[in-house]
Formats: sequence, C-alpha cells, structure tokens
Amino acid sequence: MHPVDLIRKTRDGEPLSHAEIEFLVEGAARETIPVEQLAAWLMAVFHRGLAPNELATLTAAMRDSGSKFDPSRLGGVSVDKHSTGGVGDKTSFMVAPIVAAAGLVDPMISGRALGHTGGTLDKLESIPGYRTSLSPEEMKRVLAHCGACIVGQTANLVPADRILYALRDRTATVESPYLICASIMSKKLAAGLDALVLDVKTGTGAFLQDQEQALFLAALMVDTGERAGTRTAALLTDMNQPLGCFAGNWVEIAEAVAMLRNERHPLNEDLRELSLTLAGWMLHLGGQADGPETGYAVAETLLVGGKAHSIFLEMVRAQGGDVRVFDHVASFHAPKARREYIANREGYLSYVDCTAVGWAVQRLGAGRERVGEPVDPHAGIEMHAKLGSHLGAGQPLLTLFGSSEDHIEEAVSILSRAFVIEDMPRASQPLIKQIITAENRIQFLEKPLRP
Amino acid sequence: MHPVDLIRKTRDGEPLSHAEIEFLVEGAARETIPVEQLAAWLMAVFHRGLAPNELATLTAAMRDSGSKFDPSRLGGVSVDKHSTGGVGDKTSFMVAPIVAAAGLVDPMISGRALGHTGGTLDKLESIPGYRTSLSPEEMKRVLAHCGACIVGQTANLVPADRILYALRDRTATVESPYLICASIMSKKLAAGLDALVLDVKTGTGAFLQDQEQALFLAALMVDTGERAGTRTAALLTDMNQPLGCFAGNWVEIAEAVAMLRNERHPLNEDLRELSLTLAGWMLHLGGQADGPETGYAVAETLLVGGKAHSIFLEMVRAQGGDVRVFDHVASFHAPKARREYIANREGYLSYVDCTAVGWAVQRLGAGRERVGEPVDPHAGIEMHAKLGSHLGAGQPLLTLFGSSEDHIEEAVSILSRAFVIEDMPRASQPLIKQIITAENRIQFLEKPLRP
Repeated sequence: MHPVDLIRKTRDGEPLSHAEIEFLVEGAARETIPVEQLAAWLMAVFHRGLAPNELATLTAAMRDSGSKFDPSRLGGVSVDKHSTGGVGDKTSFMVAPIVAAAGLVDPMISGRALGHTGGTLDKLESIPGYRTSLSPEEMKRVLAHCGACIVGQTANLVPADRILYALRDRTATVESPYLICASIMSKKLAAGLDALVLDVKTGTGAFLQDQEQALFLAALMVDTGERAGTRTAALLTDMNQPLGCFAGNWVEIAEAVAMLRNERHPLNEDLRELSLTLAGWMLHLGGQADGPETGYAVAETLLVGGKAHSIFLEMVRAQGGDVRVFDHVASFHAPKARREYIANREGYLSYVDCTAVGWAVQRLGAGRERVGEPVDPHAGIEMHAKLGSHLGAGQPLLTLFGSSEDHIEEAVSILSRAFVIEDMPRASQPLIKQIITAENRIQFLEKPLRP
Repeated sequence: MHPVDLIRKTRDGEPLSHAEIEFLVEGAARETIPVEQLAAWLMAVFHRGLAPNELATLTAAMRDSGSKFDPSRLGGVSVDKHSTGGVGDKTSFMVAPIVAAAGLVDPMISGRALGHTGGTLDKLESIPGYRTSLSPEEMKRVLAHCGACIVGQTANLVPADRILYALRDRTATVESPYLICASIMSKKLAAGLDALVLDVKTGTGAFLQDQEQALFLAALMVDTGERAGTRTAALLTDMNQPLGCFAGNWVEIAEAVAMLRNERHPLNEDLRELSLTLAGWMLHLGGQADGPETGYAVAETLLVGGKAHSIFLEMVRAQGGDVRVFDHVASFHAPKARREYIANREGYLSYVDCTAVGWAVQRLGAGRERVGEPVDPHAGIEMHAKLGSHLGAGQPLLTLFGSSEDHIEEAVSILSRAFVIEDMPRASQPLIKQIITAENRIQFLEKPLRP
C-alpha cells in the first residue's frame, strides 16, 4: 500500500477502504508515513471531505491507536458530555454530578484553555489540592466511589490524534468538520462510553460561528458516535454571550457550586437550563429516563434535592481537592486587581462579541500565552447584564478580575468594541437551537459542506 | 510571515501577495519551510488553483532560485521549443538546427526518458561520443559556433523545482496544471529566452490525455511566459499515435537525420509538418518572419536547402559526437533482437493506445526502470502503418527492436491490446488542433479547471 495512492484517491473524491484508512492512521501514530504525505492527505480531506463510513473508520482507528479506558468493568452505564468550546461554560461541573447522582458513570476527560475558551482542568485546579492527572487505577477508584471524575488525558490517549492535531495546526487543516469530528470523537470513544451528548456551540463565542457548519459538524459527530455503538445526540446551542454570569477559573467553579447549592439568579438561568437539558439527554441516552424531558425533570430533582452537590463535593475530595474553600467562596476569591467596566450609553445590550470577551478573560490572566505556563486562578469576569438587559449610562456592564492593572488594561482594550447597546432590544435567540439525534441525523448530512 | 497563514489563504482561494509567494519558494529552495507545510500548500493549489499573477510570480521565483543561463551576451535572439512529452517525438533534432540556420540561438535544455515517453538526451547519447553534460562555458562556445545546442540541465538549474517536484511526486499533486506550468516554465525561463514555442500534446500518448485540460495548461503557460517577458505561443498537437515512423533512441536520430537530408517518406509527413510548423512559429516569435506561415516557408527552405542538416552535424560534432555514424546509418543500427509485429486482421488502423506503445518502447530497452540505469541505444520500434492506413491480414504493423527476446516478449504483451483495426477508417484528427497565442490566451483561462 503506497500513501501516494491513498492521497490521490481522497484528492479525487474516491473512497478509501477500511484497510487503507487504518494504514494511514497507523502510519501517522507510528510515524512511518512521512509528514508531507499526511499533510497532503489532510488538505485533500479538507477539500473533499470523507464519506460517513470513512469517517467512522478513521475515528475508530484513531481511537484504537493508544490505550483506552474501559468503564464497563465498573458495572454502571457510562455517559459523558462534550462541548466544542465556549466562554463561561461550566456545565461540566453541573452535569457530571447530576448523572452520577442518577446512578450513571461519567468518566469525563477534559482539556486546558484553548484559544479564547477556558479550560475545564484549569478551572478545577483553582480548587486547592485538586489533581487532574490521575492514573487509570485512581480514576477507577474515584468513579467507583462517586460515579464521576473530571481528569486530563493521559499521554497515551489517542496518540494518532496528538500527531494529526499538531500537523493540522501547522497545515491550516484545523477547521475541517471531518477532522474536527475524528479528533473529538476518537478521544471521547476511547473512554468506552455507552452514551454521549455533544454540546455544539454556535454564535460569536464559538469556534464554528456559522450555524450551518456547526450543524453539519454536530450531525457528523452523532453519525460517527452511533456507528461506533455509542448512543449519541448533539445539541446545537447558543454562544452569542458567555454562559451564566462568570468566566474565568475560580469564579466559574464558584458559580457552579452556588447553582449546585440551588441558589438561583436571574442572570444565569441559561446555565441552569442548559445544564439540566444536557443532563436530561445524558439520563435519557443512558437509560435512566424515557425521554429527554423526563431526564430534565429527573436532573432537576437531583439538583434541587442537593444530591448532585454532595457528589460534586465527594468527587473534589476524591481527587485531592480541599472542599473547605466552598465554605467561604466569596472571601477565597482574591484577584490582584479589579475594575468595573461601565456601559458607555443607556439602552439594551444587543450584541456581544463573545470571542473578544473570551480573549479578554484569557488576557486578564485566566489563560496562558504558551503551553505549560501557569494560569491565574482568580482572573476572570463577572457579567452584570445579558443580551436584552437594560442598562443605564454609567452602570457597570461587567467587573474585571486581573492578575495586574496591566492585565486589566489589556482586557479593556480588547473589550472596547465587544458590546453594542441600542435603543431597542433585538429579538432574543433560543438557547437550544436544534437537537440532532440518531433518528434525524441523516437529513443534516445530505448536503456535504464544501469550502 | 507564517507559512500556515499562506496555506490558509490559498486553501480559501484568497490571493497571495508577491512577497508571500517569494517567501514560499525561497523557503522551499532553502528548506527553511517544513515539507509538511509545503505539501499542504501544494494540495491547496491542486484544489484551488492560482490566479494568473500568482502563477507568474511563482514561476519567476522558482526560475530565480538557482543559477540562470544568459544567452543575451551571445548577441542573437534566443528561442526554444518545449514539448509536454509524447512518443516518437524527435522534432527537437529538426527545429533546433532550422532556427539556428536562420540566425537565432537555441539553448535547448532537455530531459531523460520519463514514464512512457523517450528522453531527448537518451536519444542523442546513442550517437557515439555525444556529451549532454556541458558547463555553461562549453554551452556558450557551442552556441556561438553553431547557434544550437541540446544539453541536460545542470545541478543548480531551478533547485526550487527539483525540491517541489519531488514533493509533488510523493503527495499526489503532480497533475495540477498550475504546478505543471510553474515547473516547465521556470526551467525554460531560466534559459533567458526571448521567445518560446510550446508543443502541448493531447491524445492517447500524452500525459494530459484530456484535450480541455491540455488546452488550459497551454493557455496557462502562454500567459506565464508572456508575463515574464518571453514571447510565447503554444500548439495543441495530436498524440494519438507515435510521431513519424520510429520510436526509440538511435532509430529516432536516424529518422531525423534522414529528414534533415530531405529524404521524404509518406508515413512521416506528420513529423515534417509539425517540425516546420514549430520552427515557423519560433522564427516568427524570434523576429525572423512576419507570421507563422512565412516562418514555415523559411523553415522549409532551410530544411530543403540542407543548411539545417549542416548545423545539426556541426552541433553534434561540437558536443563531442562522432558524425561518421551518419555515413552508415542503417548498418550502425544493431539491435540484439528484432521481431515483426503482425496485424491480426485485415482493415484500417483506427485506434492506437499510444501510451501502451510508449511503454512497449521503454520495455524493449529504450527506457530505464530506475534512475541512472543505462538505456539500450538500439531498442525501439518502426511503425509500418499510421492511423487510417490499410493493412492486410498478416502484414507487419510494426517492427520491434529489443535488448533481448525477453524484452521483445514483454513489449508484445504490452502491445496486445494497443491497436484497433476496423473495416472502415475513422475520421482523421488534425495534427495541429489549436494554437494559443499572446492574443487569444485569455479566452482559454476564463473558466479555471477545478478537479
């Protein structure tokens, strides 16, 4: 088998066989196929796409390129949620304990801050002592104890993706929905899940801002998950503003804990609704509810009753975290600098450049400029308004928490054109725009997106 | 400047600036841009193409990547011809002496056998003593002496093309008309030509069998030549059968010499017509004739009068060749094995798989299986019929000259399905299908070919 022949086929839109795709992935993982040939193939995929069975084979071959996690020995039904990345998205801290409270197992493998979006691991590490690097044995112990864990990926999880991702980054092939799908799904499927719910963001704060592209990606992922034997659904959700009121590290943990304590606030009902909807779908696909609506109701009961909160605390404790910080959430928050960011006129908040807000959060100190740098656990923002909120002139729009005055200055300059306040409110967007399931996925795949 | 940004632009069909293209070519030639990034860019070009000014810049930057030949110091007007490759094409041995006889300078830099096509250098080396590797100084002496030389390329001619060509070969991006154009034209323009005539083959023996693709490539090359300040025209010519009667090494030299001696034969009038048409265009673009028709007439006079023949002998002598072999052309031809290949039925020769015929010639011993292997100067074929010829059953269709009986067997098996003989002759194809000039080129570039 010659790589050049496989490149030529994909280049011309001819399908590759199962064996041919496995040859490519193995060649990538073992570094036996030269990078220039992998690069050319990736660019051919960018332009030509892959057929559904090719994508499923690619994803499975990538999934199988390293060590896998097998939660089936734990006895429970395993479920997970994955988000394509947004600003202020702390639903993981809500849904993992909720589904664990319902008896499911959620072995959640998460990531670091990427681009303008925060990292689940960085947020958790703002809890003193919390360890995100667990061995598979430790992970199993935590899961057996409390049904949920949130950890980083081990070095040997899907090595083919690590190599291909680095190559995509250097060859301008990151944005291919096919390659995004294979990358996300190979890692998720390596955790041996029975069911998976995908939160595909669209809007000004999403990586895929275009709704049609996001929908296509969502359908590809549902199709690929189902073909791998994992019950999969995707929610296309709004990311035209930060989710909830806070974005950063500790401030997001604090907001999630307050919600787990059943404290409600009119400005973060979106976070509550999305968390319960995602958890509802996870409960449904995991066999704990007849449908997503029943799942939502079950999830709400587990949240309101405090069971999810208990499991969250257990999980944090099991992963080494000091839960005493939650006894004095407000006083633990000690940003080095803070500033109110004022509305420049009276009116309704009608547009948020949510990617700019995300970058501002990163530059305040919540993110890193280079891989491996430490992050500031206390950097972040609090939003005092949501889209449609009425603001008086001079009223604070948000509060900035920075590592220094310089960090705050940088964030302020990034935010200078991030908000539009108008005389009249614009029509509000639904939080959940579309749901893609095993049953309806095909219709969204009929017109393949070509660049 | 970051390569990934340039890849992204080409990927999305956005134009690259002059400086950006030069950065890519310099990075390729100096090996400062990683091969995977060059590979991804080549595949993006394959799918998206390049705008005419981008292609001109690419070609110029490649041309300038190594040492160049400057014939202007020789005082004359320099012209050349380039063919995209066919079977039995020995027009170079005709046109170089003809245009030199008219006072032009032809510094012809040629290649080796490639795929199913023979190599001009391999053919010339069947003349005992003929040296195809000349230093630039030797080349200038030969040109000053007789106005024409036919040599191989020096190691430092267009190094960017050597690197990019090797990469294209490994990444399935060879067939892009844009990349073919840049490769051919960068090398031709490095010879500092005032005028260039391109012979773009189409038909069963051409690399680009599809006529529309060949036409598009021809127009790209004319446009690129003109933008570089070289007067350029392209002839789209028929390659549905070998040109003339012979294909191989020495047999092609012998056929050309016979024609230069003004010996005429009904079966190779196509070679004569094409040679004179090409030379006519070269004379016209080189300022030696008011138009291509006048050029044709001038060329014919120089051929018939024997002046071109004299110059050919001078050139061979100046490049170290022993011209005494031309005194006994027939007896010098000493193939180790020979066989008649018989028509399997009575009728008209109506179809030739000319690529198969080319491979048969290579396998008879005229070509090599690996770079650097010697070729058999006496291997080849003689065609006894052309498309439209009437053949009796059992009449010889061609004669095979092989390095051994085994070589002949291999050729026979390749040829087994290469010819179609039918009851009625098919409509004949014109030899010259289209002429693309500076004036009419734009219309052929309007609809860019996309894979």
